[in-house]
Amino acid sequence: MPRTPDWFTTDEYRARLAQTRDAMERLGLDLMIVSDPSNMCWLTGYDAWSFYVHQCVVIGPDGPPIWFGRGMDAAAATRTCWMEDESAFIGYPDHYVQTPERHPMDYLWATLADKGWHRGFIGVEMDNYYFSAKAYAALREGLPEAQFLDATGLVNWQRAVKSDKELAYMRRAAAITERMHRRIAEKIEPGIRKCDLVAEIYDAALRFDEAEGYGGDYPAIVPLLPSGPDAAACHLTWDDAPMRANEGTYFEIAGCYHRYHVPLSRTIYLGQPAQRFLDTEKAILEGMEAGLEAARPGNCCEDIATAFFGTLDRYGIEKDSRTGYSIGLSYPPDWGERTMSLRRGDETELRAGMCFHFMTGLWMDDWGYETTESFAITDAAPEIFCNLPRKMLIKT
Amino acid sequence: MPRTPDWFTTDEYRARLAQTRDAMERLGLDLMIVSDPSNMCWLTGYDAWSFYVHQCVVIGPDGPPIWFGRGMDAAAATRTCWMEDESAFIGYPDHYVQTPERHPMDYLWATLADKGWHRGFIGVEMDNYYFSAKAYAALREGLPEAQFLDATGLVNWQRAVKSDKELAYMRRAAAITERMHRRIAEKIEPGIRKCDLVAEIYDAALRFDEAEGYGGDYPAIVPLLPSGPDAAACHLTWDDAPMRANEGTYFEIAGCYHRYHVPLSRTIYLGQPAQRFLDTEKAILEGMEAGLEAARPGNCCEDIATAFFGTLDRYGIEKDSRTGYSIGLSYPPDWGERTMSLRRGDETELRAGMCFHFMTGLWMDDWGYETTESFAITDAAPEIFCNLPRKMLIKT
Repeated sequence: MPRTPDWFTTDEYRARLAQTRDAMERLGLDLMIVSDPSNMCWLTGYDAWSFYVHQCVVIGPDGPPIWFGRGMDAAAATRTCWMEDESAFIGYPDHYVQTPERHPMDYLWATLADKGWHRGFIGVEMDNYYFSAKAYAALREGLPEAQFLDATGLVNWQRAVKSDKELAYMRRAAAITERMHRRIAEKIEPGIRKCDLVAEIYDAALRFDEAEGYGGDYPAIVPLLPSGPDAAACHLTWDDAPMRANEGTYFEIAGCYHRYHVPLSRTIYLGQPAQRFLDTEKAILEGMEAGLEAARPGNCCEDIATAFFGTLDRYGIEKDSRTGYSIGLSYPPDWGERTMSLRRGDETELRAGMCFHFMTGLWMDDWGYETTESFAITDAAPEIFCNLPRKMLIKT
Repeated sequence: MPRTPDWFTTDEYRARLAQTRDAMERLGLDLMIVSDPSNMCWLTGYDAWSFYVHQCVVIGPDGPPIWFGRGMDAAAATRTCWMEDESAFIGYPDHYVQTPERHPMDYLWATLADKGWHRGFIGVEMDNYYFSAKAYAALREGLPEAQFLDATGLVNWQRAVKSDKELAYMRRAAAITERMHRRIAEKIEPGIRKCDLVAEIYDAALRFDEAEGYGGDYPAIVPLLPSGPDAAACHLTWDDAPMRANEGTYFEIAGCYHRYHVPLSRTIYLGQPAQRFLDTEKAILEGMEAGLEAARPGNCCEDIATAFFGTLDRYGIEKDSRTGYSIGLSYPPDWGERTMSLRRGDETELRAGMCFHFMTGLWMDDWGYETTESFAITDAAPEIFCNLPRKMLIKT
């Protein structure tokens, strides 16, 4: 009962694999151990909430990718991956799970050694959430003849330019994001409890849309919606208190379809915002236009950032954080792709099919404002995924 | 605007800190670097979705814990942590975020060195999601005079016995879990799309309950609800297809309150289940009773497992995975506490206040069945958190 063929063709997966092997060859790798669930899914189609135990995809010198995971998750792997050969699935016994007595990577290195893959250059994702210090130590100890190379981001970079099918999924995610923001705008009012508003957000994110013909998947980050002075803090989630008049709240959320994300933030003020809000908004909207103008193939990531920061500078506003990042397929805890950043110094050349969240948020001492856009680079002007008014919604 | 005092008293946090320092001393640690967001929250109250960048809590030889994270998240830290002294918060500049050029742990080791904490024995959580191989390499390189010891689980183990306040939060989470399962039972029918049912689950999980006086937080794992042959696989999430008659579906979900989780699974069959379903259920329910009977202080974890597996054996049913784990405070990707497992060989003595998810699920070749309980060890019979019929709901 494979679900994957509905998502992408086997040809697309084979092309991704070939592209990854090319990148491995350029780095001199004989083998690659891929621990990032987003990379695992992109390479194989594997989709299950099993990344709380050790698992990976191994790209050997030839043949299909090998899924390696907890024995009980092999059933999810055979159902979601494109590989047909049984030998492409290796499950480890359950007594390796969450115990200091033995480590799943001990099982992996023994398996690799059996295949004669115990020497040469092995790429690992040194800086991924799901490749712990202990996992690395176990592999190194088990494969003393191998040389390990840091290949963090190697697969992520292959994902930078989206295929037509991936872009189609991004557009579906964007339609969900629009629904979510429209629902917020409709429901928000002084007195509504924040947890109830989040229930509305999930409802809009997930429910089947009869007109469009599809429902939503879980976003890799939960809704972020701090109010008033708390909006000075990024990444706060919610509580169950009623929303108050005369406070601003930003909503940083993403729609998700087949694990593809389109994040987008909007700010809503319940009452009449102070002039500083309106002045800041003016600067940000102008900076955003300037940044989008620079989002052209041939330019590079920092050109977008420079255009945006340049506008803020003219308004005397300082933002000390990056102003965006690449997006696409993702799993918790991050909906970013962890390759490109829209910041000074990132000289990655923009190419058609790259997708970004242009994170133009500002967090001040005791308030915050976020209005953002997600877009794809095209041959001409960027394709802006969502069609929502950028200006703060003022609800009095 | 600190939220934390609403959750736990400063005294409780101080007691946790003292208890952790005792454990550090037994291991001979001078310093402990805590990367697990659940441990960070338990020690400091820190609560934000920022664990997609490097962050930690440092327990030094004296004084309050030190929160270390991305500069922009310091605003969330000062709002949620109990520490009052500004020096307990260290934010790193944004150009350290997600770049191969420099690593946040470089900033950390420089900070530690400034404090004279660059030698001696430093405990790190070697096998935690949020302590990557690269983070460890950066620390080791930066602090060559320090000796690093694996202290995975050191803080988690301090969390094993819950305080009265923590148990009160578990009970609130349990009430949410009950609501979620009741909603499922009410809404499920052939034809309902799975994504719509998940929207209902989130609605029940989050909305403010006027009678109880509180709303819900996000669970660390999204709902798992595979149907029919897919129920052979654990950890599959959902799609947008309609549910079908003559299929069984298990629902593995958790209510969450102030980050405390009470997971619980139930199975629903739309139609008349085959006899194998009913036979299996009989064995599992009997085994569950036997396991709960063994869940007494003085017994150990494996006694519960042995009682359960012994019953299954008599019915000729084999389960090759552990049958439960400790629960409590948690963040994605896992609602387990990653200390005790209900499995043969786990000789941890049961003590009043320990909480478990008794995961008695069975995944067969082309179907699956889950009915589970979460409970707390007390001085006598265990406190079973939820009050829901264990038998499969048969809806024809």
